[in-house]
Amino acid sequence: MNCEIIGVGTELLLGDIVNSDAQYLARELASMGIVIHYQEVVGDNPERMRACISTAVSRSDLVILTGGLGPTADDLTKEISCEVMGAELVLDESILEGIRSYFTAKGIVMPENNAKQAYVPAGGTVFANRNGTAPGCAVEKDGKILIMLPGPPRELKPMFEHEVKPFLANRTGGIILSRQVRTFGIGESDMAQRVALLLDGANPTVAPYAKDGEALLRVTAKAETYEQASEMCESTIEKIREKIGSYIYSTDSENLEETVVKLLKKSGKKVALAESCTGGYIAKRITDVPGSSEVFEYGIVSYSNEVKQKLLGVKSETLEEYTEVSAQTAAEMAEGVRRLSGADFGISVTGISGPGGGSDDKPVGLSYIGFAYEGGTQVREVRTGKKEDSREYNRYVSASNALHMLIQYFNERTGKEE
Amino acid sequence: MNCEIIGVGTELLLGDIVNSDAQYLARELASMGIVIHYQEVVGDNPERMRACISTAVSRSDLVILTGGLGPTADDLTKEISCEVMGAELVLDESILEGIRSYFTAKGIVMPENNAKQAYVPAGGTVFANRNGTAPGCAVEKDGKILIMLPGPPRELKPMFEHEVKPFLANRTGGIILSRQVRTFGIGESDMAQRVALLLDGANPTVAPYAKDGEALLRVTAKAETYEQASEMCESTIEKIREKIGSYIYSTDSENLEETVVKLLKKSGKKVALAESCTGGYIAKRITDVPGSSEVFEYGIVSYSNEVKQKLLGVKSETLEEYTEVSAQTAAEMAEGVRRLSGADFGISVTGISGPGGGSDDKPVGLSYIGFAYEGGTQVREVRTGKKEDSREYNRYVSASNALHMLIQYFNERTGKEE
Repeated sequence: MNCEIIGVGTELLLGDIVNSDAQYLARELASMGIVIHYQEVVGDNPERMRACISTAVSRSDLVILTGGLGPTADDLTKEISCEVMGAELVLDESILEGIRSYFTAKGIVMPENNAKQAYVPAGGTVFANRNGTAPGCAVEKDGKILIMLPGPPRELKPMFEHEVKPFLANRTGGIILSRQVRTFGIGESDMAQRVALLLDGANPTVAPYAKDGEALLRVTAKAETYEQASEMCESTIEKIREKIGSYIYSTDSENLEETVVKLLKKSGKKVALAESCTGGYIAKRITDVPGSSEVFEYGIVSYSNEVKQKLLGVKSETLEEYTEVSAQTAAEMAEGVRRLSGADFGISVTGISGPGGGSDDKPVGLSYIGFAYEGGTQVREVRTGKKEDSREYNRYVSASNALHMLIQYFNERTGKEE
Repeated sequence: MNCEIIGVGTELLLGDIVNSDAQYLARELASMGIVIHYQEVVGDNPERMRACISTAVSRSDLVILTGGLGPTADDLTKEISCEVMGAELVLDESILEGIRSYFTAKGIVMPENNAKQAYVPAGGTVFANRNGTAPGCAVEKDGKILIMLPGPPRELKPMFEHEVKPFLANRTGGIILSRQVRTFGIGESDMAQRVALLLDGANPTVAPYAKDGEALLRVTAKAETYEQASEMCESTIEKIREKIGSYIYSTDSENLEETVVKLLKKSGKKVALAESCTGGYIAKRITDVPGSSEVFEYGIVSYSNEVKQKLLGVKSETLEEYTEVSAQTAAEMAEGVRRLSGADFGISVTGISGPGGGSDDKPVGLSYIGFAYEGGTQVREVRTGKKEDSREYNRYVSASNALHMLIQYFNERTGKEE
């Protein structure tokens, strides 16, 4: 089955937003063994949309459109797609009722133009939207499938995961299973070289990629049954583990913060945070994880030296002698927040995220992570090597390193106990 | 002049990387008054590339390709584009020399396959690459322009800025200017209905869209000069202001956190935060803004009731009588952090982000924002109406409301003073 993805919307065409839906869908479809030949973006223009959709339907088995399902007059995805596929749009009373309740729950009366979203293709499949008002839908004709999904990622992703994947699984044969091997502290090309022999395999395939300062491997197996595919992935992951085991922190698609929360829950321990340059980013990432309140209760954002001293007990001599961006300050911040909170672990970050504030000696992208635990304090120096314009990246990578220090602590202890 | 952008490369097609080049180029081209009708992504497949480029050249005045200029055998952008445009590829000795020096400077001998990058279209324009080995180039024929640029953003962006922009400026007339009107507290369809008459205008055009729980309008004017276009936008924004002025928080493309930092800086005031359900998200967003340390020094993440009581001074009777998710607790948290920090404003959030913890009475998506200032405390109740799977959204919207309360405070005061 070959596929193409069409993003609809002038905001995409003019570059107001980046087409992250296309990336998400491409990766998910590829992992299901669906071959993608083209992606397009087209604006809210009836003629060009018609031309684009017609071409796509003529050359691809599966066409997925994202966006243009909104309530306003320039949202035309359903109208034009159904015209091309020869399907009629009919009002679905139960969807209309659902949209009304959505607004009622917010204490608002449904604006009349939202009724437009309750029209779906006759004889098609409807995908429920748990996070918005626009349902998705699919039309099938002459062996071709056309799927329409809402543009906002928080609506599209759960809909694709829960509704579209099972729909597509029924229409493709066999099973394709993908597993992710996540590493920290090794570059993509270094990782790729160390597992080079595995990259040539045809089934499972092993593909390296880099994301947000981490290097990942995607292992994908095709088989008749889920069990076979799962076993094939597992045996390849074992081979990867032999090569780069010490860098791997997850093989279950869990990110750093999810891994941290899992490890803390398992051990019944808690962490407290004192953040300077990351300014709440670590706290935000930990509390992204549902249930994190069990293991994280206490965070301080100490953007000024005054707060570092008064609240966290960083000594004024330390700040004077070593400055606020130093291993010594990081250590005292971590110890301070651990003491103050009574948590098992104290983690701190102090650094220079940019764009300003850097020097030759202490450049933008430098940070120190403090990690205080029963029996000691460790400090990790991080240098991202990125300069101006990299504030977000520098903050993200500092936060990642902070999370990773805690994972490393658990991994080292587990290693010793075994 | 209408344009389309083609991204070449299997890594884009499979979603390994997001197509940020397309977003960058689209935004730059739109600001130059070049209309973009289509964007595509195609893999490193000769036949599909040929089809895609041929279609593009037939329907667009300007076609820009990104990627596929590398040294390996699957990099085919130049070969296929020149074939479609009927141009011959010839070796340029001076470029070859440049590529050799690039490697020499790094202490490496040029790999032989890099010589492929020194071939350029006969009679075309060459764009120098200051950050890599692949030069860009342009071919013109029968009034059509085809431009090829390297894929890596750090090579593409400076090349576009310094080489391609002047090249294009010589070939286009007129100016297009876009302005963004950002609102908070009104839905996209409600907003669209209130400014419905303006949405029909041809020049400037006014287009509504929704992003991250906010509703925006894009106003775009075409004119001979920058001044004319600017005046046309401004007069349309005035008309929008008459309809929905109280919801507008920015007409300068600034987001909520940028607006907050700007207003605080301007007034010389500081804010402190006490976050429960948002868990550091507001702090993270404020510190995303460079220079925020001037106005934000102190944040507390108080995920447990113990921290709310001990550190922030929330009364145990308040927690017992009203629970931690209540207007009363929010008010005491905001007052507590304002007192503790000595900041001018204290902002707090307490709520239920999900997936768990909701009840009929206090559902997931409910939060209370406390706002303490000299002379009073306000509380805003937020109900996102979203349930499970919406933790990120609920947290984001709670944080947005917290930021918006501060903006509203400033706006109301400015209103009174006038």
